[in-house]
Amino acid sequence: MNWHVNILTIFPEMFPSTLACSLSGKALQRGDWSYNTINIRDFADGVHKCVDDTPYGGGAGMVMRADVIEKALLSIKEKGGNSGRKIYLSPRGKPLTQKLVQELCAEETLTLLCGRYEGVDQRVIDAHEFEEISIGDYILSGGEPAALILMDACIRLMPGVMGNTKTPNEESFSEKSGGLLEYPHYTRPFEWKSLTGKIFYVPDILKSGDHKKIEEWRKEQSKTLTQERRPDLL
Amino acid sequence: MNWHVNILTIFPEMFPSTLACSLSGKALQRGDWSYNTINIRDFADGVHKCVDDTPYGGGAGMVMRADVIEKALLSIKEKGGNSGRKIYLSPRGKPLTQKLVQELCAEETLTLLCGRYEGVDQRVIDAHEFEEISIGDYILSGGEPAALILMDACIRLMPGVMGNTKTPNEESFSEKSGGLLEYPHYTRPFEWKSLTGKIFYVPDILKSGDHKKIEEWRKEQSKTLTQERRPDLL
Repeated sequence: MNWHVNILTIFPEMFPSTLACSLSGKALQRGDWSYNTINIRDFADGVHKCVDDTPYGGGAGMVMRADVIEKALLSIKEKGGNSGRKIYLSPRGKPLTQKLVQELCAEETLTLLCGRYEGVDQRVIDAHEFEEISIGDYILSGGEPAALILMDACIRLMPGVMGNTKTPNEESFSEKSGGLLEYPHYTRPFEWKSLTGKIFYVPDILKSGDHKKIEEWRKEQSKTLTQERRPDLL
Repeated sequence: MNWHVNILTIFPEMFPSTLACSLSGKALQRGDWSYNTINIRDFADGVHKCVDDTPYGGGAGMVMRADVIEKALLSIKEKGGNSGRKIYLSPRGKPLTQKLVQELCAEETLTLLCGRYEGVDQRVIDAHEFEEISIGDYILSGGEPAALILMDACIRLMPGVMGNTKTPNEESFSEKSGGLLEYPHYTRPFEWKSLTGKIFYVPDILKSGDHKKIEEWRKEQSKTLTQERRPDLL
């Protein structure tokens, strides 16, 4: 299976960025996933190739034009491609969650629209029914870094991408964790003398070999941590 | 003023990634901000330079060793640097918000610890009082893409980085927006015939020139949108 992403952007040089490294880079080379960038600027008219204009109603900044973005979007089909599920990365969107990541990873094709400046003309979102997704409650320089996050989260879930296929089910927000934050991890050395002078031990229970008790302890840790830090998840 | 970020990672090649492009890239060249990567692997012992080991108590995946990470962290000071505010990017952390971004942007120095695999040994977080921050409720391949997001959000707030200094105050989550999602944007052409065949107009109010009414309309749109999509923000 190949998972394909079309990326509408004025900064095609921002891809594949970190996705070219490590396990996602190997998966890209194997053809487990693929992407292509469509430079929105190529679809702008005039000598200046302007993709944006001032906002109606006044205000600071510039807005990306609906007509230019639409031409860029429709070029995917013209070139024999498929736009699949269309997503506009925007702080106004519904929050990206692990559940949504699983859903997006199961699609064959995504088209990600990366806005810059003040955002894009609302009408192109409406006309082509882009789904708006936000990676978090903060503002970025543009949609490109957000697109890379969405792709990273999806790619690591693909069969064969991570060494150990068991891992994704036990982590934070997973079904097995009950949607809770993950318990703390410990590894060797058992007794660790920090250079601060203090000695730190691994909790004894983790050396007990009693798997049932260990599981109970970890669940308890998850619950406590979630209660403390993210009561909204409970 | 220079804003400096130390990055603890086993993938130094993942930086500066998208931050080398566009306005953040120009700001980097001007020296408005700077960064250095510290390769955690350089501080591992043995021929294999292992930075990780199996988790105490069993379970899938590997955990990054406290002793190796500590040596990497302390190397910052040894080389005459300052570690400043220490942050571990982790899905278990407190959520990154625009308010927290503003706070981090006002710091002189940050140290970002990027975990891979199952995460890092809890004891190094405790011993050196790393603050845990999460960019969203999903799991990434590692902390590096999250570090890039945190940096991107901070850099665009620096004076002089964005062309129009007014912009950041009017957007989603800003104080001026009352913590709401932003109203929709429109630009030329006023009448847009989409290639779907449908004609879309800019809302008339935005052409009225009545700034008070426009502001009221935008506030109303913000409220409605937030109510629909993110009632949790109200």
